[in-house]
Amino acid sequence: MKLATLKDGSRDGKLVVVSRDLTRCTDASFLARTMQAALDDWTRVAPHLAALAESLEHGSVPSERFHESDAHSPLPRAYQWADGSAYVNHVELVRKARGADMPPSFWTDPLIYQGGSDAFVPPRDPIRMADEAWGIDCEAEVTVIVDDVPMGVGAEEAKDAIRLVMLVNDVTLRALTGPELAKGFGFFQSKPSSAFSPVAVTPDELGDAWDGGKVHLPLMVDLNGKPFGRANAGIDMTFDFPALIAHAARSRPLSAGTIIGSGTVSNKMDGQPGKPVSEGGAGYSCIAEQRVIETIQLGEPKTPFLRFGDTVRIEMKDKAGHSIFGAIEQTVEKYER
Amino acid sequence: MKLATLKDGSRDGKLVVVSRDLTRCTDASFLARTMQAALDDWTRVAPHLAALAESLEHGSVPSERFHESDAHSPLPRAYQWADGSAYVNHVELVRKARGADMPPSFWTDPLIYQGGSDAFVPPRDPIRMADEAWGIDCEAEVTVIVDDVPMGVGAEEAKDAIRLVMLVNDVTLRALTGPELAKGFGFFQSKPSSAFSPVAVTPDELGDAWDGGKVHLPLMVDLNGKPFGRANAGIDMTFDFPALIAHAARSRPLSAGTIIGSGTVSNKMDGQPGKPVSEGGAGYSCIAEQRVIETIQLGEPKTPFLRFGDTVRIEMKDKAGHSIFGAIEQTVEKYER
Repeated sequence: MKLATLKDGSRDGKLVVVSRDLTRCTDASFLARTMQAALDDWTRVAPHLAALAESLEHGSVPSERFHESDAHSPLPRAYQWADGSAYVNHVELVRKARGADMPPSFWTDPLIYQGGSDAFVPPRDPIRMADEAWGIDCEAEVTVIVDDVPMGVGAEEAKDAIRLVMLVNDVTLRALTGPELAKGFGFFQSKPSSAFSPVAVTPDELGDAWDGGKVHLPLMVDLNGKPFGRANAGIDMTFDFPALIAHAARSRPLSAGTIIGSGTVSNKMDGQPGKPVSEGGAGYSCIAEQRVIETIQLGEPKTPFLRFGDTVRIEMKDKAGHSIFGAIEQTVEKYER
Repeated sequence: MKLATLKDGSRDGKLVVVSRDLTRCTDASFLARTMQAALDDWTRVAPHLAALAESLEHGSVPSERFHESDAHSPLPRAYQWADGSAYVNHVELVRKARGADMPPSFWTDPLIYQGGSDAFVPPRDPIRMADEAWGIDCEAEVTVIVDDVPMGVGAEEAKDAIRLVMLVNDVTLRALTGPELAKGFGFFQSKPSSAFSPVAVTPDELGDAWDGGKVHLPLMVDLNGKPFGRANAGIDMTFDFPALIAHAARSRPLSAGTIIGSGTVSNKMDGQPGKPVSEGGAGYSCIAEQRVIETIQLGEPKTPFLRFGDTVRIEMKDKAGHSIFGAIEQTVEKYER
């Protein structure tokens, strides 16, 4: 089934079930007022949501047109957003850009950071930032939402805790990243509010593209209407979602509604860093990677980070070409108080 | 007024108003079901909670005995836990222990990390860890809960957003800290679930001890029943709470219910690192600091980190000697799944 949260003026929005083709939705708030409420009581609520989804497909319940622009992030605020960096190729390239070496352990020990989760942005809302000089960048990722996970869970058991799958634009401020990470406490100011796809789907909606740990489909990233990234999320994901969940739960439990991110999707090409889409490559899921490649090839980056007025679109389509999660589409705007 | 969350089997517990002397409480869930619900609608709800608190003091509403052991952390789960490290003396000492230099900018640019907030521990529950070898340590801190804070807020305006004050035991796994921070993404596994004081209080309950930015009272930390720390939270706090809030909100808004931590309270003594309580000093709010002093003085640390069976107690008393927030008291236990 596919679920979304409609903006209704409240902090957590209203839960709806969305049709498989994303054209219609039906109120599900009589089963669970909010997405978090559904996740808090998933075992009891999910079968009823699934039944409602079937009824929606058959046209046997009242429904209305689903507009992606009416959707908030599926969880407008969450109790945890733990973002991995599972495509180690991305880590290697971005560190290279910062002049930082990558220890070999990065290929065996998952990297994850604690993200801010109190104020996510709706998927069609602007990225509002005070200053272009902060180096505004997108990071297109796949994410999962888990149920309660006990401390010390193993990867095999962690598989069963995955409830929903989404996309995210994990906006990153590159000019702030370097100085902030040098302080040793991880990201804070350099990771402003993220936006998630209009729709969250149960893994079965992905069919063969879901193998229990990864999504084997290209992640489509467009900048200002032009293809920028088509990296396959099933390729070069060194740590799959169950591995990331187990890593996150080593010394503490995870509560239902915890969002786990894949990190920026990134593919190698013939064992080398990839090429732009325009040159026949899979392109990039963030601008920083393209800038590293340019620096390697040309001595300096030529693609600028996002400027006020630029638009990022992130989407994933099934093999028949239908959008699975709806599209994140955000324009960068100057923030004024 | 003083507020607490009673454990009732639900994820978020039940909101109660607690008497000033912490002996009695009255159900407040008819005004706001949970602490988060009160914070979500503070402007409207707080005056009613305050009126209820007055009635409780006068004995004009039904009340029951308040047992600190019945309390969960005031927010059993929160949308954000952003923990500063405002006592730069602590940072300097702990970095020394890791063999890491401290850049001078640490005295002017606040340090803050994004903590996990999905699964806090009740204040009288054990610290359950799988392995003593992880170097289990306490960190006693003061925290505030804020209302909605707009992006880009200044410190002066941030003052007005402080709604409640609490204590926290920010448990830290010292053996995991070094390797994890070296990876560059901050703490994750090395910061397991925190426990907050049984009671959260509005700043006016602190009287003269609250100056709008700091709490000028000693933070009492006992290990296995013996005084370990008596550092004054109003001394050597290089960045006060409004400064920490402004830092956290530079590139994103903070949502109501965000918890901001002071970092481990730490006092210098005559311009030098402090002395143990037993030697007439203010002692320490974490074991790591004492171990650094021992290493400096004796060549190696002699105080071990927490072992299974050890107990940590964290409390703060007003000038008349009455407990303000109730006590966090946690025994370390082996975690078995």
